[in-house]
Amino acid sequence: MSLKLFYAPGACSLAAHIALREAGADFELARVDLAGGEQHSEAYRSLNPLGRVPLLATERGSLTEAPAILAWIAQTWPEAGLAPLDDPWALAQVLSFNNYLSSSVHIAFATLFRPQRFADGDEAAAAMKAKAPETLDQLFTIIDRKIGRGSWVHGADYTTSDLYLLVMTRWLKRVGHDLNRYPALISHAERTLTRPAVQAAFEAEGIRFA
Amino acid sequence: MSLKLFYAPGACSLAAHIALREAGADFELARVDLAGGEQHSEAYRSLNPLGRVPLLATERGSLTEAPAILAWIAQTWPEAGLAPLDDPWALAQVLSFNNYLSSSVHIAFATLFRPQRFADGDEAAAAMKAKAPETLDQLFTIIDRKIGRGSWVHGADYTTSDLYLLVMTRWLKRVGHDLNRYPALISHAERTLTRPAVQAAFEAEGIRFA
Repeated sequence: MSLKLFYAPGACSLAAHIALREAGADFELARVDLAGGEQHSEAYRSLNPLGRVPLLATERGSLTEAPAILAWIAQTWPEAGLAPLDDPWALAQVLSFNNYLSSSVHIAFATLFRPQRFADGDEAAAAMKAKAPETLDQLFTIIDRKIGRGSWVHGADYTTSDLYLLVMTRWLKRVGHDLNRYPALISHAERTLTRPAVQAAFEAEGIRFA
Repeated sequence: MSLKLFYAPGACSLAAHIALREAGADFELARVDLAGGEQHSEAYRSLNPLGRVPLLATERGSLTEAPAILAWIAQTWPEAGLAPLDDPWALAQVLSFNNYLSSSVHIAFATLFRPQRFADGDEAAAAMKAKAPETLDQLFTIIDRKIGRGSWVHGADYTTSDLYLLVMTRWLKRVGHDLNRYPALISHAERTLTRPAVQAAFEAEGIRFA
């Protein structure tokens, strides 16, 4: 199977990248120059009209949206054990958590990184940036309480939720948020960072955790 | 199996509600008084710390996030044919579309309905409300082009993406957006509205399409 992951260093595409390495998949990386606006080019928009990463190009076509790419990788390489495929309820909990990261946590970061996506004007941008820390604190407090109960997000087994969460924890650290408020999150990140697939993905993207 | 769906009339919980009826599931409805702030009560937050609908309470615990609830329903009642369960690639496309509705389309509506979630102050709220129509047009134009190619969102078969899209199309109509810009979307909504499960859910929630 020929696979190409369109990514930007450290973007949420990093979750798909780590998952491909955890799965032992054979894939190519294609860096998208977000700062240069390559995601808005006609060539890229023909693959993803929304102009975002990640995008996974396969022989059957393109797949977008991080939680969907993660679900497909988990199902296509079942031996990697990235999701509880035999238990629909447990699998739905993985999807639920990943969707929470995508539609609440990532969006809170987006109001900080790209406020112009939601409103025009400097004042609105400043108001969104001012609100984001409070929202992020609410969202990560919920996560911290949840993972406090187990080794990994969903308990005993490492899943796509763990590698996806690491990407969001990294963003939280990089925006200067005080991570000491979330002790379970810190220990989760430390544990996740020891995985060879995570380290290989960071190295390939030329990024560090902090 | 004992199931209770926590919902608010016409909210995105409507997608889970329709899916339960499509599946022929036996379930109870529990209305959450969003205007009265019931979602912020201690009782409700013990079920969903984020204080949102939908929430599906089952004998195994609670499940949140619309795309995850839809995936669980599709997998638990396979005979309803709500998702291509035997084809991981096609299934991932359903997840991808549902995630697009959740993390892009729903969020665009949220900046219109609940701008205070993203920023404080009347000016920021006004700026977000001013921007939303342009974003919604971009997002629904992408959808209109996609469904233009088939009877349903993903082609020949009705899936959870279709009933979830109907909920978003209804919101688009109710905010006064000109639906005539999206001919495939209009015909999709008309077709979806003929389904008995959709009609029963609308009646049970006491809502109409327009």
